[in-house]
Amino acid sequence: MINVGIIGYGYWGTNLVRNFFAAKDCCVKAVADERPERLQQLKKVFPGIVGVSDSDDIIYDPAIDAVVIATPVFSHFPLAKKALLQGKHVLIEKPMASSVEEAEMMIDLAEQNNVLLMVDHTFLYTGAVEKMKQLVDHKELGNIKYLDSTRINLGLFQPDINVLWDLAPHDISILNYIIKDRPYSVNATGITHTNNDIENIAYLTVNYNSGFIAHFNCSWTSPVKVRMMLVGGDEKMILYNDLEPTEKIKIYDTGYNHTRDEDKKLILVDYRTGDINVPKLSTTEALLGMANDFIGSIQAKKRPKSSYNIGLDVVRILEASNKSIKQNGCEVLLDQPGKSVKQNNLEVIIQGNGNSLYQ
Amino acid sequence: MINVGIIGYGYWGTNLVRNFFAAKDCCVKAVADERPERLQQLKKVFPGIVGVSDSDDIIYDPAIDAVVIATPVFSHFPLAKKALLQGKHVLIEKPMASSVEEAEMMIDLAEQNNVLLMVDHTFLYTGAVEKMKQLVDHKELGNIKYLDSTRINLGLFQPDINVLWDLAPHDISILNYIIKDRPYSVNATGITHTNNDIENIAYLTVNYNSGFIAHFNCSWTSPVKVRMMLVGGDEKMILYNDLEPTEKIKIYDTGYNHTRDEDKKLILVDYRTGDINVPKLSTTEALLGMANDFIGSIQAKKRPKSSYNIGLDVVRILEASNKSIKQNGCEVLLDQPGKSVKQNNLEVIIQGNGNSLYQ
Amino acid sequence: MINVGIIGYGYWGTNLVRNFFAAKDCCVKAVADERPERLQQLKKVFPGIVGVSDSDDIIYDPAIDAVVIATPVFSHFPLAKKALLQGKHVLIEKPMASSVEEAEMMIDLAEQNNVLLMVDHTFLYTGAVEKMKQLVDHKELGNIKYLDSTRINLGLFQPDINVLWDLAPHDISILNYIIKDRPYSVNATGITHTNNDIENIAYLTVNYNSGFIAHFNCSWTSPVKVRMMLVGGDEKMILYNDLEPTEKIKIYDTGYNHTRDEDKKLILVDYRTGDINVPKLSTTEALLGMANDFIGSIQAKKRPKSSYNIGLDVVRILEASNKSIKQNGCEVLLDQPGKSVKQNNLEVIIQGNGNSLYQ
Amino acid sequence: MINVGIIGYGYWGTNLVRNFFAAKDCCVKAVADERPERLQQLKKVFPGIVGVSDSDDIIYDPAIDAVVIATPVFSHFPLAKKALLQGKHVLIEKPMASSVEEAEMMIDLAEQNNVLLMVDHTFLYTGAVEKMKQLVDHKELGNIKYLDSTRINLGLFQPDINVLWDLAPHDISILNYIIKDRPYSVNATGITHTNNDIENIAYLTVNYNSGFIAHFNCSWTSPVKVRMMLVGGDEKMILYNDLEPTEKIKIYDTGYNHTRDEDKKLILVDYRTGDINVPKLSTTEALLGMANDFIGSIQAKKRPKSSYNIGLDVVRILEASNKSIKQNGCEVLLDQPGKSVKQNNLEVIIQGNGNSLYQ
Repeated sequence: MINVGIIGYGYWGTNLVRNFFAAKDCCVKAVADERPERLQQLKKVFPGIVGVSDSDDIIYDPAIDAVVIATPVFSHFPLAKKALLQGKHVLIEKPMASSVEEAEMMIDLAEQNNVLLMVDHTFLYTGAVEKMKQLVDHKELGNIKYLDSTRINLGLFQPDINVLWDLAPHDISILNYIIKDRPYSVNATGITHTNNDIENIAYLTVNYNSGFIAHFNCSWTSPVKVRMMLVGGDEKMILYNDLEPTEKIKIYDTGYNHTRDEDKKLILVDYRTGDINVPKLSTTEALLGMANDFIGSIQAKKRPKSSYNIGLDVVRILEASNKSIKQNGCEVLLDQPGKSVKQNNLEVIIQGNGNSLYQ
Repeated sequence: MINVGIIGYGYWGTNLVRNFFAAKDCCVKAVADERPERLQQLKKVFPGIVGVSDSDDIIYDPAIDAVVIATPVFSHFPLAKKALLQGKHVLIEKPMASSVEEAEMMIDLAEQNNVLLMVDHTFLYTGAVEKMKQLVDHKELGNIKYLDSTRINLGLFQPDINVLWDLAPHDISILNYIIKDRPYSVNATGITHTNNDIENIAYLTVNYNSGFIAHFNCSWTSPVKVRMMLVGGDEKMILYNDLEPTEKIKIYDTGYNHTRDEDKKLILVDYRTGDINVPKLSTTEALLGMANDFIGSIQAKKRPKSSYNIGLDVVRILEASNKSIKQNGCEVLLDQPGKSVKQNNLEVIIQGNGNSLYQ
Repeated sequence: MINVGIIGYGYWGTNLVRNFFAAKDCCVKAVADERPERLQQLKKVFPGIVGVSDSDDIIYDPAIDAVVIATPVFSHFPLAKKALLQGKHVLIEKPMASSVEEAEMMIDLAEQNNVLLMVDHTFLYTGAVEKMKQLVDHKELGNIKYLDSTRINLGLFQPDINVLWDLAPHDISILNYIIKDRPYSVNATGITHTNNDIENIAYLTVNYNSGFIAHFNCSWTSPVKVRMMLVGGDEKMILYNDLEPTEKIKIYDTGYNHTRDEDKKLILVDYRTGDINVPKLSTTEALLGMANDFIGSIQAKKRPKSSYNIGLDVVRILEASNKSIKQNGCEVLLDQPGKSVKQNNLEVIIQGNGNSLYQ
Repeated sequence: MINVGIIGYGYWGTNLVRNFFAAKDCCVKAVADERPERLQQLKKVFPGIVGVSDSDDIIYDPAIDAVVIATPVFSHFPLAKKALLQGKHVLIEKPMASSVEEAEMMIDLAEQNNVLLMVDHTFLYTGAVEKMKQLVDHKELGNIKYLDSTRINLGLFQPDINVLWDLAPHDISILNYIIKDRPYSVNATGITHTNNDIENIAYLTVNYNSGFIAHFNCSWTSPVKVRMMLVGGDEKMILYNDLEPTEKIKIYDTGYNHTRDEDKKLILVDYRTGDINVPKLSTTEALLGMANDFIGSIQAKKRPKSSYNIGLDVVRILEASNKSIKQNGCEVLLDQPGKSVKQNNLEVIIQGNGNSLYQ
């Protein structure tokens, strides 16, 4: 049994409490929120859970094994740092930190204290993303050529992070999860319609050396909600529409070959279009799967699906996108991976200081 | 009665012949195509129209008043130049030329010869675009904040022009038609999946000084066909889905206001969402409207809706997008408008050499 | 404060408990269910509510003012009868009874005991149905000509009631709520694919003297879920698609006039199609609105929106549909309304034995 | 080479001329229409085809082998009779006649004169219907349980036939083509909103002895256009949405089994839902396929796909639907098949008077 404390009882915190309440081998001991009305609401729905106004009452409680942090991004690092130093396992909301530097320091602290640090990239636990991962891993799409995602709606303007930091972590985590190649640079453009220099519309291109490209279109100011991702290979292509109640994934048996004539100009592209398959997907609640993975990984001392590597790569791309927007869209190279940056999907565990177990 | 000759009887040429055949005060005298099988097909469907294999037979025919050019882009300039020098009115397919230089030379020739030069941006003649223009002109959307267009499908890889030159002219002409502000720069990224360095996926951002932004997503390699444009104002927003048979335009009574506190961080955005209106649109065939505008503008010596100014601005943006892609997405400033670059929608006619009438 | 006891903690019972828990001036005292595992689940989610296995512990509890019955249809009458005789107010799930006779007896008992008897036709409390009611009442559709509803999906085969009794109460209650005319007959056809003579597909036509017609298509064996209702007038028509997340109601400014020539054969129908309006709808949870109406009507001694009149008319049509199916689709006249059958929407209250207050 | 004359150059006649013009081994010699403006239009589009105002000029022309009749339903029989007596092969628009009696007389005449009589049920030549036929024939759906079709839109009120005769022939011909069982009765209800007693909304149930049921919902007064057919088996189910541009057919790997307990009441139905398959369909123009089948069947002296048997069964069901509507929806038995009524899909050819070859 893992005793859990949850910091932050806002919209998402509510979902986290409900799912950790239902998770296996897990006991939600306490929830912290500065707002009295939120604690009152907690008491009404979960009378058995202790509500505290100070997060330290959770972080320094020796009865608590793991801390879940669901607060604004800027507070992720200081809260996580304290908890990791106390030897708590930490689950942190996406994006994991405000900068690569913070994220890497959190990873170092987790390794030094030999505890699990995991990021809540919930989408990785959906049936749709799991199916896409499986199709890509089994080479069913052929060579992957592009990923193109549109995530737009009328959304709350965040006061501290722009629309890419708010919405794109979902899509970038999916990108990092299903595509093994590492990107080498990004371009981003955007605009702010407020006076605080925080973009409410932004476009991000992620470039790869391999002939693969990823593009993200994010907006808080679209009158319609769109959640559409295309993943194209030269043999099959996927349309992932997260708003479809049951037909979220469509697999198009559609591909193209190109033959080149001597003359470079004479390009011949052969299309092939065939059937479409709409696979049945697992309908387990993603957030419950995430909670179970966190608890299970603590118990088994194993690397969870939504590892800090994925979380770090998300922050790395977001940080670079900020630079590119500031430089009017110019290409920004992604930093060379440092010591703590392990390859996604790497089967061999690279240990930090020799005693990290949760990677 | 205006006698018309049409050069190029391919897919689009067929549509042009059919619509000029039906246009008012117009007689299609001859059609030129090098391919004998195309001329045979012409003879079968339009036995009354002369088919010729050499375009010069049209250009140098004194009985022909106006020449319609529906050939590959690289041939637009030489054909148009010849025809303009012969004093023919010219309608040219989009994009009007391979470069700004060519386009400007064509415009100069038209002015010097006092003939009409018009570009076939057919979408400007649709009920949907006309409705959007009207809503923007009447300030019904409030201040226009963004235009975002997605035009993707499985498309023929063109051997000589990339996907932006192939697909984006539609969207950029709509942008130029409905938005009066002039853009100052572009960013573009893209990728080629063939060996000829011609992008089959590309993303284009067009930047303005006014807080407006436009973005275009074009692809020949999408398994699904999408034709979706969003035009957002701070009072209303438009969704234009060209694939909807009858409900192409939806007007969302949705807006947002922002109030700024002393503290720059405290941004307060108020949303408002209300009804949606789906206006009934004119269902006249756009291409027939375009043909009638060409003939009518020759007769009335007036500037047509799809003027060379719009055509030139489209080429200007496309040319800059090429440069940006080559420079890895860096911002490319749009050239300062030269003498022939008139403002769209400018009511005052700026004349070239003092006797141009068709602007 | 009204003390409520709820009988039946199945799928719908869970929703009822949650919403009465949240309702104004209401205290959920106890929940009854024979199944120990359901009571355990209740205890987990609502530790403050008493769980009992015998419904009599609720019905005979003097501290309980009102009883909510969410059990299979055949048990509605005996449970409601007991509760009404104890002077409890009763809210009963749809359909209110297995027969018109039972429903009329329940109404008589409610009148005699001067308590509120209400039926849970939840849809009447949705923003969509409220909007339709308002449009019809304000004559915005012109003369109403037809209502056509399709409610099909893969559904649980019920062991005791056929697909019309299971699914059509929703649609028939909407019909009865928005259309003031009274039907005079029904035709129904259907088929059973099991061996128990309970139809899993059925079609129902409800006939009116006024030139209005209603039709219902219900199935438990459709691979796709459809929830679509058309309400057509000669001036406007409504499409109500309950599966649309936000655009549930579309109002088509579409109508038709017919002019008749002397010759009966020469019928001239003029169509008119105009804009479509998608109104913003109230998004309050319907079930909470229903719970609040029940509690509020008890307190105000007023007739609730989902009155027993609507509930009785639903049963009357369902009972007649059974007869029609047994008679191979022949027309079955609806019984003449008896003493307890008040007109829907009748402003004048007809009292039963002189002391009924809740009609 | 078969010489063809076409009677009727209205909306559908135009399509017929265009497709017979393109058909193999076929020459369209003449087109008849009483309206001078239609003949003028013909001359403009097809200058090589003779236009005549009197259909006799086609029927009695010895150079013409086959007559295509595309006139209002009431004129089908007199025109076809004349043509058959002249030994012409006849293609007739759907529905083939105004009554079963007329249809049977036409069939007798065709047999006696040893010519082909075929009905233009165009839908049988679409890729979608061909795919459904193939799936049913190969038992991929398991045992077929139901067919449910909705064909509604704002349509022209016909002055001589009701909405079932106008719209349902499409669906009934598909029913007759893919389902081998013979129906034994029909029920129909409907309403007229004009003064000429011609229903503009109607519902039709077709009953079978085998536990299969078919239902048709037709309307000229729906604000939305719906073309949706469900065909359900106990192993798979088909959704056929004719308005989808490319995904017309979806095959749901969805079925249900029922096990019966001793107690008749305890019905246990097991659902199974799996993947959905959207097959690629042939995109040949259906009308051209129909024209080629007519010409090819004349040449090969074989029974065409859209045989008179299917056409007769369509009229049989329509005639019975009229009776049922007049009898307030009561069940009307379908006449016992007479001598000319051959089973659809019957492999053994039953000959009429011993010399019929085209069945």
